Amino acid sequence: MLDTPDRNQKALARLEEVFGRRIQRGQAIREQHGHTTSWIATQPPDAVFAPETVEEVQRVVTICGEDRMPLIPFGAGTSLEAQLNAPMGGLSLDMSGMNRILQVHASDLDAVVQPGVTRKQLSEYVRSDGLFFPIDPGADATLGGMCSTRASGTNAVRYGTMKQNVLATQVVLPDGRLIRTGSRARKSSAGYDLTSLLVGSEGTLGVITELTVRLHGLPERIVSGTCSFPTLDAAVQVVIQAIQFGLPVARIELMDPLCMRAVNAYSGLGLAEKPSLFVEFHGSEASVSEQVEAFSALCEEQGADPFRHAERPEDRSSLWQARHDIYFAFSELRRGVKGLPTDVCVPISRLAECIIETNADMERSGLLAPCIGHVGDGNFHLMVLVDPEDSEEMARCHAAVDRLNERAIAMDGTCTGEHGIGQGKRRFMEQEHGSAVALMREVKQAVDPGGIMNPGKIF
Amino acid sequence: MLDTPDRNQKALARLEEVFGRRIQRGQAIREQHGHTTSWIATQPPDAVFAPETVEEVQRVVTICGEDRMPLIPFGAGTSLEAQLNAPMGGLSLDMSGMNRILQVHASDLDAVVQPGVTRKQLSEYVRSDGLFFPIDPGADATLGGMCSTRASGTNAVRYGTMKQNVLATQVVLPDGRLIRTGSRARKSSAGYDLTSLLVGSEGTLGVITELTVRLHGLPERIVSGTCSFPTLDAAVQVVIQAIQFGLPVARIELMDPLCMRAVNAYSGLGLAEKPSLFVEFHGSEASVSEQVEAFSALCEEQGADPFRHAERPEDRSSLWQARHDIYFAFSELRRGVKGLPTDVCVPISRLAECIIETNADMERSGLLAPCIGHVGDGNFHLMVLVDPEDSEEMARCHAAVDRLNERAIAMDGTCTGEHGIGQGKRRFMEQEHGSAVALMREVKQAVDPGGIMNPGKIF
Repeated sequence: MLDTPDRNQKALARLEEVFGRRIQRGQAIREQHGHTTSWIATQPPDAVFAPETVEEVQRVVTICGEDRMPLIPFGAGTSLEAQLNAPMGGLSLDMSGMNRILQVHASDLDAVVQPGVTRKQLSEYVRSDGLFFPIDPGADATLGGMCSTRASGTNAVRYGTMKQNVLATQVVLPDGRLIRTGSRARKSSAGYDLTSLLVGSEGTLGVITELTVRLHGLPERIVSGTCSFPTLDAAVQVVIQAIQFGLPVARIELMDPLCMRAVNAYSGLGLAEKPSLFVEFHGSEASVSEQVEAFSALCEEQGADPFRHAERPEDRSSLWQARHDIYFAFSELRRGVKGLPTDVCVPISRLAECIIETNADMERSGLLAPCIGHVGDGNFHLMVLVDPEDSEEMARCHAAVDRLNERAIAMDGTCTGEHGIGQGKRRFMEQEHGSAVALMREVKQAVDPGGIMNPGKIF
Repeated sequence: MLDTPDRNQKALARLEEVFGRRIQRGQAIREQHGHTTSWIATQPPDAVFAPETVEEVQRVVTICGEDRMPLIPFGAGTSLEAQLNAPMGGLSLDMSGMNRILQVHASDLDAVVQPGVTRKQLSEYVRSDGLFFPIDPGADATLGGMCSTRASGTNAVRYGTMKQNVLATQVVLPDGRLIRTGSRARKSSAGYDLTSLLVGSEGTLGVITELTVRLHGLPERIVSGTCSFPTLDAAVQVVIQAIQFGLPVARIELMDPLCMRAVNAYSGLGLAEKPSLFVEFHGSEASVSEQVEAFSALCEEQGADPFRHAERPEDRSSLWQARHDIYFAFSELRRGVKGLPTDVCVPISRLAECIIETNADMERSGLLAPCIGHVGDGNFHLMVLVDPEDSEEMARCHAAVDRLNERAIAMDGTCTGEHGIGQGKRRFMEQEHGSAVALMREVKQAVDPGGIMNPGKIF
């Protein structure tokens, strides 16, 4: 039997017979397709191919399956845990060209799209129907990629994650079979929920060639605002109460004083450098007024500074631009370093405790790590600002991040709320899931016995 | 190798060595555990066992696995598609005694329960915390059973189905292994979503021994009401518009004129015998007022009679009692017959068309079939009123129901929105899912290679 590199070369030769120069072997394009925004070193694939049709995907998958060459589906390249690396070489399947919006069903609030469609492209397209696609992970990722990592972001507290917003998929399985999972019905009890099995499977079970996603009506009125608190705990208490009172807040983001310092330095907003909440309310005229009033009252009870809110689109934009620019802003805190992002999620009752313990640990470890959180879900990120050339600092960083992941898991949480496992968090799978990991492996083995789909990820 | 009945007897003998007379073989209890509210004939198991601990479940499953005796998890016995029948004999595992509420986390809006806890029991228990469990399939089913069939009901349009409301499970796999899926974190991207795989698997993948469900805050204010329309289409248009405008309606149920006749005859409410919507709004003072106003305006535009609403708990109760009593009320339409329930779900834009075509088909087929729907989700039920002794009528009934299921599937819908496949709808699996059924079978084979878990269901 041939070893992996030889098998890959054999498969590539066969692919070239079929697709000619569309099988791209140039170093630049290979490096670009292994590269992600991850802190993990690039492992480029042997080649890149950008299919244009479902039939081409089936053909490629069949050839790769026969020769057991790894296949790594690629969207916009914005994943954070090295989901796109090719540790065993293989073919990067760049889906970004399959980017047509196939159907919009305005009455049903859904759209059928190819996997290369980006979230902004879809929202732009359906705006004239009074609709939008709510999942916003920051980057303008492709919907196929977002489906694969079970992405979410700032709006998830109100609109859910990709888990709640993917109704159906079309998938090429590792043996080349084309299947559809789910339907456009809003709910179904007809057999196993294969759609949910695929959402979050990080390309390890097949290649998504189409997906049906939910759309939502553009809110009649939007108000955004910020509020600063004497302590982190006070801010989290407001979040818990808002959720418990059923306040349908659309976004509720926590920023710690370090974050606020970075935001001020980068965006010049002149905000208080205290624990702060950035919030947004969606709804009718009256409902938004009521939400703002109720939220202001909760903040006041916790000794917050007055709630500053904005309604003009330009003012709202500048606020959320500052929030989204945060990853650039961090460079204001320490020049010339890289940010290593964390992504734990815990039950909200443990959130303040988790953040406070983690901040203390980072300080003890001599690490600068501003904290920003999708706190309505109990999900928060640190950006550990480190010098990748300083191996001692990197070791301290990894040790502290490991402790953070363990802390979150011990609190009945997860090591990843939205970034996925990729290569970066594989060693926490057993800790988080115990013997359920064995069941995941059995499912993987049943669906992909040759192990060609994105090997070395999740497991 | 022993054949099935012999294997079952061998396993039962081993089980009796361990559990003695707790392995119940009496005919009455066996019949009761095969019996469901289904129209399908009872196929009783060989014996019934009510485990009291997780360890007992593991022990039973291990013995059954070794001798390949079928195991059928049993909750409250309210499933509608013969999910509890024992076509190959075996052991009914009555989980209703494992009915402790283990933890309530009010701040996190979740509860950890044993599978025998019923939905009313849980809502009662958490009421003093200002919380409730929203999934309401009508019957006071167990949460384990509701998880297994991916149940929903009248509140799903606002609060989701069991899919959205089960955060985590503890499950005994067919080989006796105990695993946990999910966590109490609100979201996670850590590997395959095994929880969603188990929700809706109808006992075919393992025995649920614990589940973590979401709770919701009791609304500050509730208003219920009814409104009658000149045509079915007008009523459905109001539903579409309400959903599209983002009106957060908590319940929106369609009843056709036949239903209204039955309701009046049974509950004496004196309502118009026209296509009608039963609705409920949850929220704050102002938000509910606004919802009522917006909904009334939508109804008026469609030429409806004035929207009658009620706020006093006793008035609201009598309205929803009438809705829930509908299955008894149907006997007012035709005495001495049985009702055969259907359960399709279609994209809401196809709903009016699907109901109208179906009503015409039922009429042509000489069948009396009142229609009631969870129309916010596109899910509706007919109750075909038939004489089970009249084989010619039953044949007409089955043919018309088959056409209904095919019609819904052709509209990109599903043959079951919330009842599940059980034995009754297996032959629609291929039609609905095509080659994805093969993938479901592969997953089943990987998890339960001996085929002991609830055989003859779904597939």
